[in-house]
Amino acid sequence: MYAERVDGLKSSAIREILKITSRPEVISFAGGLPAAELFPVKEIETAARNVFSRYGYLALQYSITEGFVPLREKIVKTLAAATERPGIGNILITQGSQQGLDLLSKLYIDRGTVVFTENPSYLGALQSFSIFEADVVPIASDQDGMRIDALLEGLRRRRPSLVYLMPSFQNPTGACLSMERRRRLIEIVKEHDLVVIEDDPYGELVFEGERSPSLFELGGMRNFIHLNSFSKTIAPGLRVAYVAADEEIIRKLTLIKQGTDLQTNTLGQFLVEEYLESNNYREHIRILRRTYKHRRDCMLSSMEKHFPESLKWNRPAGGMFLWVELPGEWDAREILQRCLERNVAFVPGQEFFPDGSGKNTMRLNFSNASPDHIEEGIRRVGEVLKTHGNYL
Amino acid sequence: MYAERVDGLKSSAIREILKITSRPEVISFAGGLPAAELFPVKEIETAARNVFSRYGYLALQYSITEGFVPLREKIVKTLAAATERPGIGNILITQGSQQGLDLLSKLYIDRGTVVFTENPSYLGALQSFSIFEADVVPIASDQDGMRIDALLEGLRRRRPSLVYLMPSFQNPTGACLSMERRRRLIEIVKEHDLVVIEDDPYGELVFEGERSPSLFELGGMRNFIHLNSFSKTIAPGLRVAYVAADEEIIRKLTLIKQGTDLQTNTLGQFLVEEYLESNNYREHIRILRRTYKHRRDCMLSSMEKHFPESLKWNRPAGGMFLWVELPGEWDAREILQRCLERNVAFVPGQEFFPDGSGKNTMRLNFSNASPDHIEEGIRRVGEVLKTHGNYL
Repeated sequence: MYAERVDGLKSSAIREILKITSRPEVISFAGGLPAAELFPVKEIETAARNVFSRYGYLALQYSITEGFVPLREKIVKTLAAATERPGIGNILITQGSQQGLDLLSKLYIDRGTVVFTENPSYLGALQSFSIFEADVVPIASDQDGMRIDALLEGLRRRRPSLVYLMPSFQNPTGACLSMERRRRLIEIVKEHDLVVIEDDPYGELVFEGERSPSLFELGGMRNFIHLNSFSKTIAPGLRVAYVAADEEIIRKLTLIKQGTDLQTNTLGQFLVEEYLESNNYREHIRILRRTYKHRRDCMLSSMEKHFPESLKWNRPAGGMFLWVELPGEWDAREILQRCLERNVAFVPGQEFFPDGSGKNTMRLNFSNASPDHIEEGIRRVGEVLKTHGNYL
Repeated sequence: MYAERVDGLKSSAIREILKITSRPEVISFAGGLPAAELFPVKEIETAARNVFSRYGYLALQYSITEGFVPLREKIVKTLAAATERPGIGNILITQGSQQGLDLLSKLYIDRGTVVFTENPSYLGALQSFSIFEADVVPIASDQDGMRIDALLEGLRRRRPSLVYLMPSFQNPTGACLSMERRRRLIEIVKEHDLVVIEDDPYGELVFEGERSPSLFELGGMRNFIHLNSFSKTIAPGLRVAYVAADEEIIRKLTLIKQGTDLQTNTLGQFLVEEYLESNNYREHIRILRRTYKHRRDCMLSSMEKHFPESLKWNRPAGGMFLWVELPGEWDAREILQRCLERNVAFVPGQEFFPDGSGKNTMRLNFSNASPDHIEEGIRRVGEVLKTHGNYL
């Protein structure tokens, strides 16, 4: 028979919605897909030629579990602002950040282990914690991220083995942990000697001002484990991401990764390293920032035009998602059904809430659709929203 | 604090040995590496050009968890001899077969779940079962694979939730489950309605006669889950493998994979599919068979020449490994230490035995070294073996 964890498994509503939205006539704000037309396809193609001519069969052979050394050396340089100077012994290359979560769940979570998360939180993290049968305790969060008063209240009642946060432009809300809260959170974490997983795939996609320093950079390796990825800044299909952490943790995660998938795919690692070596990655990120900012602004101005005034939404300063609150008695899943009839899709927010609240919330992705599609899609959603009172 | 499973984690001696053997002056029979000079590097390079020109950015974008449909369609055709005809709903693409084991461990193993394995068995499987805290029960095995009398004896005492086997050219011993035992095992499995994982990465690497039909093909999907991989027949660095199983199992594994790493790398899947489409894969496998057979024969004739007569070894009919039994009181780890001083390496067999026996066994890989290196390496190992009595 199946393991007990299987009882808690459910299909992600998002993956189900994505099956519908793969039809070309559907305008989708549902997925968390980066804009594919901005992928550096030509550059990766050139990188492939260079990699095969330089490394030959090594690009296709088994390689070490820790990850390709020149890639880890490049990653270390981007973390140079950290309080302690990380070396390549602090980096493990993972098969996407989702695998970082899987490996960390294996390292920290027994059945019933307490994990604090934001409320709402990233669905993939909740799925990973659920596979390992964690006791997830949601901590109230708002547009400045996890609320410090709620965290302190939580700590009075429970001792978490892990705290999981996405501090910059969170999935699903787009919220960003303010600098003041970052400082206060680090104090509390050090005082209680907690282990914090900082999941930071969107940190570079900042639209206004500079990137906030990460908790890992500000708070150090004793308490903070940093997950990051090239999925949102180069391309997700290569599945190249990394964990940065204390060396002892990296050694243990490496052992666990041996028993999990031996290693991250060799070719993808070589391609990312060669891409970083031969291209202006910072300039590429500036293009992503400009494009996504423009799409966010298109979505916001379309929402101003087409959405009823009774709704609230935020103005995320980065990332890929915008968050909408409907009147309290509305159910976003009903809205979605009516939107799908008009070939437009989004993700109802409830699934992101470990405490089952959030029935009246919606996540809108603005990175994947073109400005024209954003305007038209929001118009259709607006039509549904404006008449929704009649359907209740 | 760490999860309880972490207490059982230990570094694989193999990975430690591989760090030493990466020095170019070392002749290594230690790793399980396929012969890199036989990788179809040119063909994969051409496949990369075709993939980028045909699919563009889709080769770098997120894709579905189940895996690339045209690749699954091709895999299904290779399984056409099965008693029930599998469809693409019976296939999940995995990040190497090691991930297949991880996903299956998640699906079936709670702490203390009973898993029967051969004795000795594949180390990566034992690591995966150990991460999920299975109770591994080794079943005595010989050169014809798992012993039927030992399996029946095991079933009288315990009811396993899983039986794990590598029936064809097993890692580490090279043993192949005889057709008679395959038939008898299937009867027993059906009688007890057991779930069997058949791990079959070496099945195609057969040197004499034809490939044995897999248990999955002979016994059907109700009781048999088939793991297979392109790592040994195309290239391991792409990390493209698959699980074939009943649709319900595939659906559950797909959900688990969502929370594990979202999907297998898109580019690797596209490359394997395009390679299979545009090249003569069967002819490539024939070349691998001929080359590995020749290397096995070189190793056998060198052993005849250089090894003392008190040793026993097998003559595997396929795969990548040869198995040596030393006199009962010898410890292969001591032999290894002395071999490393002479820049030649192998893997002591004890680690492969769940019951801790096998101190006097050695695994020799013959696929990775050239015939010249095989002759010279075996000569050096022979020197150590011939004088080992003096060191006891």
